[in-house]
Amino acid sequence: MLRRAAIKPALPTVVLKEFRGYASGYSTEHKEPSRPVVKTEIPGPKSKALFKEMDAIQQCGSVQLFTDFEKSAGNYIADADGNILLDTYTQISSLPLGYNHPKLLTAFQNDSDIRALVNRPALGVFPAVDWPSKLRDVLLSVAPEGLTQVMTMMCGACSNENAYKAAFIRYAINKRGGATTFTEEEMKSALENKPPGAPNLSIMSFKAPLLQGAFHGRTFGSLATTRSKAIHKLDFPSFDWPVAMFPHYRYPLEEFKCENEQEDKKCLAYVCELFEAWQQKSPIAGVVIEPIQSEGGDNHASPEFFQELQKICAANGAALILDEVQTGCGPTGKMWCHEHFNLPCPPDMVTFSKKMLTGGYYAKPLYKPPQAFRIFNTWMGDPSKLTMLDTVLKVIKTDKLLDLVQESGRVLKCGLHDLECEFPNIINSVRGRGTFLSFDVSSAALRDKIIATLKKNGVLGGTCGNAAIRLRPSLIFAPKHAEIYLDILRKTLQELNQGAKC
Amino acid sequence: MLRRAAIKPALPTVVLKEFRGYASGYSTEHKEPSRPVVKTEIPGPKSKALFKEMDAIQQCGSVQLFTDFEKSAGNYIADADGNILLDTYTQISSLPLGYNHPKLLTAFQNDSDIRALVNRPALGVFPAVDWPSKLRDVLLSVAPEGLTQVMTMMCGACSNENAYKAAFIRYAINKRGGATTFTEEEMKSALENKPPGAPNLSIMSFKAPLLQGAFHGRTFGSLATTRSKAIHKLDFPSFDWPVAMFPHYRYPLEEFKCENEQEDKKCLAYVCELFEAWQQKSPIAGVVIEPIQSEGGDNHASPEFFQELQKICAANGAALILDEVQTGCGPTGKMWCHEHFNLPCPPDMVTFSKKMLTGGYYAKPLYKPPQAFRIFNTWMGDPSKLTMLDTVLKVIKTDKLLDLVQESGRVLKCGLHDLECEFPNIINSVRGRGTFLSFDVSSAALRDKIIATLKKNGVLGGTCGNAAIRLRPSLIFAPKHAEIYLDILRKTLQELNQGAKC
Repeated sequence: MLRRAAIKPALPTVVLKEFRGYASGYSTEHKEPSRPVVKTEIPGPKSKALFKEMDAIQQCGSVQLFTDFEKSAGNYIADADGNILLDTYTQISSLPLGYNHPKLLTAFQNDSDIRALVNRPALGVFPAVDWPSKLRDVLLSVAPEGLTQVMTMMCGACSNENAYKAAFIRYAINKRGGATTFTEEEMKSALENKPPGAPNLSIMSFKAPLLQGAFHGRTFGSLATTRSKAIHKLDFPSFDWPVAMFPHYRYPLEEFKCENEQEDKKCLAYVCELFEAWQQKSPIAGVVIEPIQSEGGDNHASPEFFQELQKICAANGAALILDEVQTGCGPTGKMWCHEHFNLPCPPDMVTFSKKMLTGGYYAKPLYKPPQAFRIFNTWMGDPSKLTMLDTVLKVIKTDKLLDLVQESGRVLKCGLHDLECEFPNIINSVRGRGTFLSFDVSSAALRDKIIATLKKNGVLGGTCGNAAIRLRPSLIFAPKHAEIYLDILRKTLQELNQGAKC
Repeated sequence: MLRRAAIKPALPTVVLKEFRGYASGYSTEHKEPSRPVVKTEIPGPKSKALFKEMDAIQQCGSVQLFTDFEKSAGNYIADADGNILLDTYTQISSLPLGYNHPKLLTAFQNDSDIRALVNRPALGVFPAVDWPSKLRDVLLSVAPEGLTQVMTMMCGACSNENAYKAAFIRYAINKRGGATTFTEEEMKSALENKPPGAPNLSIMSFKAPLLQGAFHGRTFGSLATTRSKAIHKLDFPSFDWPVAMFPHYRYPLEEFKCENEQEDKKCLAYVCELFEAWQQKSPIAGVVIEPIQSEGGDNHASPEFFQELQKICAANGAALILDEVQTGCGPTGKMWCHEHFNLPCPPDMVTFSKKMLTGGYYAKPLYKPPQAFRIFNTWMGDPSKLTMLDTVLKVIKTDKLLDLVQESGRVLKCGLHDLECEFPNIINSVRGRGTFLSFDVSSAALRDKIIATLKKNGVLGGTCGNAAIRLRPSLIFAPKHAEIYLDILRKTLQELNQGAKC
C-alpha cells in the first residue's frame, strides 16, 4: 500500500485518462457519454442482488439502484448493471458538481487537508488554527448579505434545529427585557423539561392544503415543522406547533395574477391570525419556510409574499428562518434563492446543507447566543466538508456556473413549456427558477409511470408532492444535457400517450 | 497543484519523516515528544488572537485553544502557540488513534476511497455498489452480539433520535396487535402533530440526584432525554417524558457493597413505578441509558443494575437502548462497554458515534421498520467515515489496542488510587474501566483549578459532572503516557496542596 502510494500520483488514474480535456469554462466532453446507455431493466440483476444483501442488514426499501462511482461522470450516474443514466436528481439534489469532478478528486492533495480529514476536531473546543479563516474565506464569502454570523452543522435537519434554538434563545432574551441570566426556577424546571425553563414556545411552518407542505428534516424538532407526508411523522410524538398555509398558485402565473394575489393575501392574513391565536398558548418564536417548498411539490410563493411575511415576523418579534437546504448554492441561478425576492432587509437566518456539503446556518449578529455551549455539539460540522466546499465555490466562480444554470434553465423551461402544450392531458404547471424546475402530472399514478419510463429511456428523475416531477440536476448541467432530457421526456410522453390510446 | 500532485506521494511528507518507526505493536517513539512542552500560558497570544477572529463570526466561548494539526502527534496535541500537551480528552473522546496516525493519513490512497469521499451519495436511495459489503465487513464486524441490523447516521444525537424512532415504531406496531397499516385518522393527525398519528409516547432517561444525569445529545428529541446541565436545555420547548434515577454509589465499591446494592434496588423500583405511572399519560416506548453516564460525571451502575433494567424493559414492552456514543469503540477495554455487564440477552439497540467516526445504531431485527422512508434522511451517514473506521478497526486488532487499553488502564487506576490516598483532601472516588477513568475533586472550584494547572503543566484534561475529572485518552495511550500523566497530576496536586497551606 505504502509502496504503491509512494510512486502513485494522488489523482486517481481513471481520472487522468478521462478528464484531461478539462479546462475553465465547463466542459464534459472528455468524460461523459454522449447519451445515456441502458442495458438492463432498472434495477437490474446486480442491483437486485445487492438489494437483497443490504436488506438483510437494514430497511432499504427506498433504494432505487446501486451506484458505480467509478463509471459515473459529470451528469451521468452509472449503476451496478452497467446502465448509465442522465441524472436530474443528483443524490437528492446534493451533488453540486456532478460525479467525479476533477477538481474535487484532487481537493485533498494538501497535507493539511488530509490532516483536517483524519483528525476531525471538536470544532467548538479545539478548532484548527486555520478554522477562523476557513469560516471567513469559504463560508462567509458566499453569505447572504447582512448575515455575518455562521455556524457549521452536520446536516440539514440539525441546521434547522439549531436555527430554531437560536430563535428561541433570542425570543426568551427579549421576553426577559434583554436579561441574559436565569432564575433558579428556570434552571430547575429546564432539567425537568417543564416551563418556565423549557417554555411553551413554538416555530411556525407551512402546510399546503390539497398539496404537500413544508419539509425541514426528520429529527424531532425539525420533524415538528415538516408537514409534507404522514409516513415521515407517524407514531412519533411531536410538538403542538402552529401551521400556516403556503400559497397555492394556479399556472401560468401571468394568466392567474389576480387569483394568486388573493391567495397571497389570504395566506398572510392567516399567518397574522396564528401569531395572535398562539400568543397565550405557545408564542411563536420563529417562522421557518423554504423559498420553494421542495419535497412538498415545488410549491412557489411570490417575492411579495416573502416581503410581507418578513414584515409580519418583524412586527411579532419572531425570527424569519429561510430553509435554503435544497434551494441554496446556486440551482435557482443565484447563490441563494431568496435573492430573487428583493427583501428590503436580510432574513434573520438562512440554513443550508446538501450542495453546500456541510450543514449550517447564517445569522444576523442578534442571533449569536450570549452564552457558550447553547448551540453546540461534539463535532459542530466537519472541516473536510469545507475543503470540498472551497473547491466547489471556486469552480462555480471560475466556470461561471450560475450563468450556466440560468442558460440551461431557460432551455429546459422553454422546452417544458412546449411539452405542456404538446401533451396538455399529461403535464401542466411548468414552474421554477434556474434549473430548479418542475411540472405537475395529471395523476400520481401517471407521474410514477413517467418516472419509471424515463429511467428505462435513460433519465434518472425525482418526484415531489402529490404528482409532480422535480428537476435537480447539478450545477454543471449544460444546455446540451437539457436537450437530451427534453428529447427523452418527449419520447417518454409519446410512448405513454400511445399506450393510453391503445 | 496538479503538477505537484503527480510527483508527490500522497503520504504527507511530515509523516514520512516522523512516523518511519511505526510498526505493528503500537509504538509512538518516533513521532511524539518525550514529554509535554509548554512555552506560553494557555491559551497563548496566538490562540487569543484567533479566538478574537472567530468570535466575530460565531459564539465560540467554549473554545479552549486552537490546534496545530501539523505538529500534533499521537497522544500529544499542539496548539497555535507551540505548546504540546499530553491529551487525555482527545477532542471530547472522539479520536480513536490519536493525532495523525500514519494508517489514517494513508487511508485515502485508493481511487475508490477518494470517490466515496467526494461523491457523497444519498445512501438510502443510490448507495455505492460496495456499500452492503462495507456495512457488513466494517460495521457488522464489531456489532454487539445478537444485533444484526445497523443504520448509519451523522452524529450521536441523530443516532439516538433515530433509535427512539425505531422504538416508537415497534411500540406502535405492538399496540396495533402487529398490524403495520395506518388509519385515515392517524395519517391526518400525524400531519397536525396530534394523536393518534403523533401519539403521546415517551422515552425514559436517567437523572442523577445530587449529581448531573444523562447526556444523549442536543437535537430536540435527544435533548428531551438529556438531564445533565440546565444550560443545554434552557429556553427550548421539550417533551414531558419520564425521568428515572441513576444509581449514586459510594466509593470504594468494596467498602459500600451493601449500600450500593440498596441503591440499585431503590432505583430499579422507581423505574417500575414510572412504567406504571406513565401508562395512561404517555406510555414508555423505550429506555435510553449510557453504560457510564459520562457528561453527567462518570456515574457508574453495576452489571446487576443493567441486567435487572433489561428485564423490566422486556416485561413492559419497551426497547432498551444503550447509548454507547462515548463508551463504545474500546476505551473501557472491550469494544462495547455493555460487554462488561453479562446481559443474559442482547440489548435492543446500541447507538454509537465519536470514536466510531460515523454515527449510527445497531439493532435487533425486530426493530427494522416495516416501511421504507421512516428512518431516513438525505445522506444517512457518510461513506468516507467508514473508510476511516475500517482502518481504525484494523489497527485496533493488529496492534491489540484493547489489550493496551486494559494495561494502561491498570497503570492509571492504580496510580490514581495511590494519589487519592496521598491527597485524600483533594481527590476521591477513583472509578472506571479501561482508560475510561475518572475521579472526584472536593469542590468544583478546585476541580477547575486542577484542570487549569494540569494544562499549565502540560496535560489537557476533561471535566464532567459537578466536580469530576474524566480521562478520555485515545486507544493508543500507553503505560508510559499513564506514567507521565500521573507524574504531572502528582506535581499539580502538590502545587495546589502547598498553595492551600500557604
